[in-house]
Amino acid sequence: MTDEFNLIARYFAPLAGPEGLGLKDDAACYHPKAGIDLVITKDVLVSGVHFFPDDDPFLLAQKALGVNLSDIAAKGAVPQFYFLGLCLPDSVSEQWLHSFSSGLLELQQEYEFTLAGGDTTSIKGPLVISITMIGHANEGCMTKRSGAKAGDGVFVTGTLGDAAGGLKVIENKLTGFDFLRERYYLPQPRLKFGVAAARYITAMADISDGLIADLGHICSASEKGATIQQQLLPISDSVSQMITAGFAEPCMIWAGGDDYELVFTANLNDMASIFAVAEEIGISATHIGMIDNTGEVRLVDPKGNLVHVKHKGFQHFR
Amino acid sequence: MTDEFNLIARYFAPLAGPEGLGLKDDAACYHPKAGIDLVITKDVLVSGVHFFPDDDPFLLAQKALGVNLSDIAAKGAVPQFYFLGLCLPDSVSEQWLHSFSSGLLELQQEYEFTLAGGDTTSIKGPLVISITMIGHANEGCMTKRSGAKAGDGVFVTGTLGDAAGGLKVIENKLTGFDFLRERYYLPQPRLKFGVAAARYITAMADISDGLIADLGHICSASEKGATIQQQLLPISDSVSQMITAGFAEPCMIWAGGDDYELVFTANLNDMASIFAVAEEIGISATHIGMIDNTGEVRLVDPKGNLVHVKHKGFQHFR
Repeated sequence: MTDEFNLIARYFAPLAGPEGLGLKDDAACYHPKAGIDLVITKDVLVSGVHFFPDDDPFLLAQKALGVNLSDIAAKGAVPQFYFLGLCLPDSVSEQWLHSFSSGLLELQQEYEFTLAGGDTTSIKGPLVISITMIGHANEGCMTKRSGAKAGDGVFVTGTLGDAAGGLKVIENKLTGFDFLRERYYLPQPRLKFGVAAARYITAMADISDGLIADLGHICSASEKGATIQQQLLPISDSVSQMITAGFAEPCMIWAGGDDYELVFTANLNDMASIFAVAEEIGISATHIGMIDNTGEVRLVDPKGNLVHVKHKGFQHFR
Repeated sequence: MTDEFNLIARYFAPLAGPEGLGLKDDAACYHPKAGIDLVITKDVLVSGVHFFPDDDPFLLAQKALGVNLSDIAAKGAVPQFYFLGLCLPDSVSEQWLHSFSSGLLELQQEYEFTLAGGDTTSIKGPLVISITMIGHANEGCMTKRSGAKAGDGVFVTGTLGDAAGGLKVIENKLTGFDFLRERYYLPQPRLKFGVAAARYITAMADISDGLIADLGHICSASEKGATIQQQLLPISDSVSQMITAGFAEPCMIWAGGDDYELVFTANLNDMASIFAVAEEIGISATHIGMIDNTGEVRLVDPKGNLVHVKHKGFQHFR
């Protein structure tokens, strides 16, 4: 492999925006616009933990950016630029880097943001991808996790458990289920919805650890609880088929991570406006429950009985 | 080990500033002040590459922050807040985390900046520390690498080769040389000097890869060259002793990394002002050569002969 400076010049400098100074400086320089808040998020992905070592580098690049874009979406913000840290093991080839940087470029062009800097090092161990992304929100308008009020409705975009289903399809080498495989490899950050619906939303997070876990983060930050109706949880036909066929447990719906849909809370008076925004953008939004003062997230079945939640979602160090 | 949320609450939330929202949200929210530019830098440190697996976690935390603070110093900026990505192998204990976070806190208090967010994951491999740091510079005043002009003087702060000497002391288990050991483990970011001298400086970088390599970055970004006088390079008594005793080669002076001193260029008319700033702060600054149009960095001996530079500095993937 070429040295790190050639590597940066060849694969990453072409991705850089004006803040990045051609990736030739110690730092990026950015002059913020008036009237905006900066929304900054950082996610680290590790081979063997967050992705498979033999994952297609083009898709992997998009997933690594996608999980950060999803955080930006959950804050009702618009992505601007990002910093890329890469720890590359010996096994990474120039072809891998070419494909990886092409994946970055495609998403950059789709959502109109650029690379501003980063760091590239060797590692005797698994590939690590560390991304810090910076977005814009109108001043005071970032949708925090902490704004949920008792009596607010709880909503989700899209369908739940698809990525967990995709992971099972990949791990068990099942044929078919291309939709689920794609949902796992190519999460769609809900950026348009996040920005357009932000004014109606009291609290929002993206679903990376699983519905119960991420709604739990909203409840914890808001010092509230929530009651979710099991029969209201939106699922795809593919997830329904997987459960019916015995390939997966229903808990994948509320405990499966990596869907990168949004879970959010809003005053029920704004429900019609929210559904109108979702329809205009062409995604689904579903009312699944209510915020309350119970201090915990409870899942109930159609008869009102509590569903015992064994797996609350993905956790490191357990 | 406790789960990641307890770990964050216990060790890292106490380090967070207002932008960090208690480390309970998907992102940090920051409202920039008028009249400032944001200076943003990212450095990734990998166990076995940038530090030893058994390094004291308190010192390691300070080194990881220090290399980022040094980048901020090199841009004439003031640190504000940072994002911390940690990939933790199983071997990391709660005691390690306690010591690591204590090290972070001490430097935060010394230089008055805070933690704003991050990500903590497991890894089956070496410990990885990824830091993104954000500083403030007055609008348009960031000292870039690209501003060097032919006829400018080349200067460095402090002494050169100390950290490379420290590394040799540690690797070869030499006794004594505590000064060099400390220079390796505890780089002193030249923040005060960077800010105070910025107005006189045409281009600046910190010395992380070695003098020749980092001055090379300035020359490359500025499309210039430089000629450096070997006999003018400032070295400590300890490095002098190491070379005399045969423990190290003279090339450690110009090719040794990790000193985290500053190399900068300035019009010679401003030399007196620069030395006055350095004296007031209590560090040394030394005039070591000149910027020219040769397109390369050349080292010359007292007779004007070119010194052959075998090792230009640290590179990954060589």
